[in-house]
Amino acid sequence: MKIAVDAMGGDHGVTPNIEGAIQATREAPLSIVLVGDQHAIQSQLDQLGGSKANIEILHASQVVGMHESPALVARKKRDSSIWKATELVKSGQVDGVVSAGNTGATMVSAFFLLGSIKGVERPAIAASLPTRQGMAIMLDVGATVDCTARQLYQFGIMGHEYGKHLLGVERPRVGLLSIGEEDTKGNEVTKEAFKLLKESSIQFIGNVEGRDVYSGNADVIVCDGFLGNVALKISEGLADAIKKMLMKEISQSVLGRFSYLLMAGPLLRLRRKTDYAEFGGAPLLGVEGISMICHGRSSSKAIKNAILKARSLAEGGLLQRIRDDIALGLVSSSTTTATIPTE
Amino acid sequence: MKIAVDAMGGDHGVTPNIEGAIQATREAPLSIVLVGDQHAIQSQLDQLGGSKANIEILHASQVVGMHESPALVARKKRDSSIWKATELVKSGQVDGVVSAGNTGATMVSAFFLLGSIKGVERPAIAASLPTRQGMAIMLDVGATVDCTARQLYQFGIMGHEYGKHLLGVERPRVGLLSIGEEDTKGNEVTKEAFKLLKESSIQFIGNVEGRDVYSGNADVIVCDGFLGNVALKISEGLADAIKKMLMKEISQSVLGRFSYLLMAGPLLRLRRKTDYAEFGGAPLLGVEGISMICHGRSSSKAIKNAILKARSLAEGGLLQRIRDDIALGLVSSSTTTATIPTE
Repeated sequence: MKIAVDAMGGDHGVTPNIEGAIQATREAPLSIVLVGDQHAIQSQLDQLGGSKANIEILHASQVVGMHESPALVARKKRDSSIWKATELVKSGQVDGVVSAGNTGATMVSAFFLLGSIKGVERPAIAASLPTRQGMAIMLDVGATVDCTARQLYQFGIMGHEYGKHLLGVERPRVGLLSIGEEDTKGNEVTKEAFKLLKESSIQFIGNVEGRDVYSGNADVIVCDGFLGNVALKISEGLADAIKKMLMKEISQSVLGRFSYLLMAGPLLRLRRKTDYAEFGGAPLLGVEGISMICHGRSSSKAIKNAILKARSLAEGGLLQRIRDDIALGLVSSSTTTATIPTE
Repeated sequence: MKIAVDAMGGDHGVTPNIEGAIQATREAPLSIVLVGDQHAIQSQLDQLGGSKANIEILHASQVVGMHESPALVARKKRDSSIWKATELVKSGQVDGVVSAGNTGATMVSAFFLLGSIKGVERPAIAASLPTRQGMAIMLDVGATVDCTARQLYQFGIMGHEYGKHLLGVERPRVGLLSIGEEDTKGNEVTKEAFKLLKESSIQFIGNVEGRDVYSGNADVIVCDGFLGNVALKISEGLADAIKKMLMKEISQSVLGRFSYLLMAGPLLRLRRKTDYAEFGGAPLLGVEGISMICHGRSSSKAIKNAILKARSLAEGGLLQRIRDDIALGLVSSSTTTATIPTE
């Protein structure tokens, strides 16, 4: 197994990418190709003691900035680290790519170079969330902003397959994010998607409301990329606001400051359980290859976990299982066959 | 000023509604009409020592259950507490209605009996949220699930007017909830709404992302009722999950349990600052009357604050200001006049 890492991606430069790669090679039997500026990578690799690890370097002269237009990558940045790393997946030289860089550029590279799995209309980013009971998957969180019911249905099928692998359960509970439990609740698109998901063979538990997302009542939560992205960022913002407001109150009281010291243990354990870095990146599902999207502020641990997850997804044959499910879906659901593009 | 209260609404029966009404009459010069089961209300009113307060009772023989279909109210429950309370607004006998009952039934009663403000296409529920800097308004959070760009634009106009009143600022900062700051980010409807809001005379600060909602960077946050409802419920669910997970960690450590006692003060202050009950209900904007929607689990304090808010909105002439703004919008924005229904 070999994974390409976009060494230039992320808010913190090459270091977390290289550290994460070194750690990954120590934890699992795999090799890594670090893609980016040869000189910068080599010197960091030497400093971090990774020269003897199972790591190669592929030089790329360009970088896509975090705020550059994603469309640029295909037009003007074909020698960028993310484009060249994705080319390695396309040519079969590696089994997957990991990037904490410009999310849009990572997606554009995957669409252009890898293309869609046959029958899949649109891709979805499948994020992992901490819940009171462990972990849940939410998709899409930003790849496909305006979705049809058919596309949401396909997200359910792909999420179900990814959930089986990631959560290790035979029949993940798949829910549709909406505004009430009854099938009559929702917007026009979700009401239509509800019917399609109900007819499928996956374990569809119906609509789930916003308040169910973190309770752990569903393993896989389906929504369009607009709603999913807002939901994810509201959650980040709220958790951050609660933390800052609590710290402010605590710091204004002597007892509070003292209590905070005593609470360091519980707070740390909670932080570990909910740390995004533990979840190791979100795959772009629906494309013909393993492409892992990481948060821009990824730590070396987050990169390591994303690499290990990419390896695990490749080894577990996720792509083939999605291909099979989608092909099966094409023939099994009589109400929808007429509208499916086969290319 | 006189406010009608749906005495039967909410998860906790008549008590919080009656207690809230009594408290409101003690804090402000106003009278109340409690609508619902005469006998149950009178006996509670006597028990709670409210007999001498400025409160009348209007008997209603029916109740709309929290999980009944809202459409029922107009067809089969015209002697229900919410319908009769709204009739009092219609006939001008009271200046507003407050209900913690079935939200759908409250809306249906308002649409049927009060109708829309001329020019307003769809109503919006304007919820108040705690932020790191104080308070923000989000609308719509559930009245209009599928929205056009024009409707989002009108929510911005109405939210701006409500924000001026509620937040006491001359020019509230109005943002559009989306997935990126640039005007090119969003779904088809929000991109179109962005243009309309930008042309308006309100202080439109552009797109706001999910993570800005609780930071307090915007005073008024515009979205459709589907997104707003999910956003609100995800926030409730996440805050609840954080609290429960933290309590679990704390209870597993002796130091943690001890520290919790010391932290009681800061936690209580934070809770007060973020307590939904302080915010006192959400008005249904766009209808021809003051109709306040409260959370089903409203405490007496929440009911009291909703009554006081209804009184304040009526006294401040919110309806007339929205009428004026919408009428002005009809003539000032040349790009949109063609599509506006005048009835």
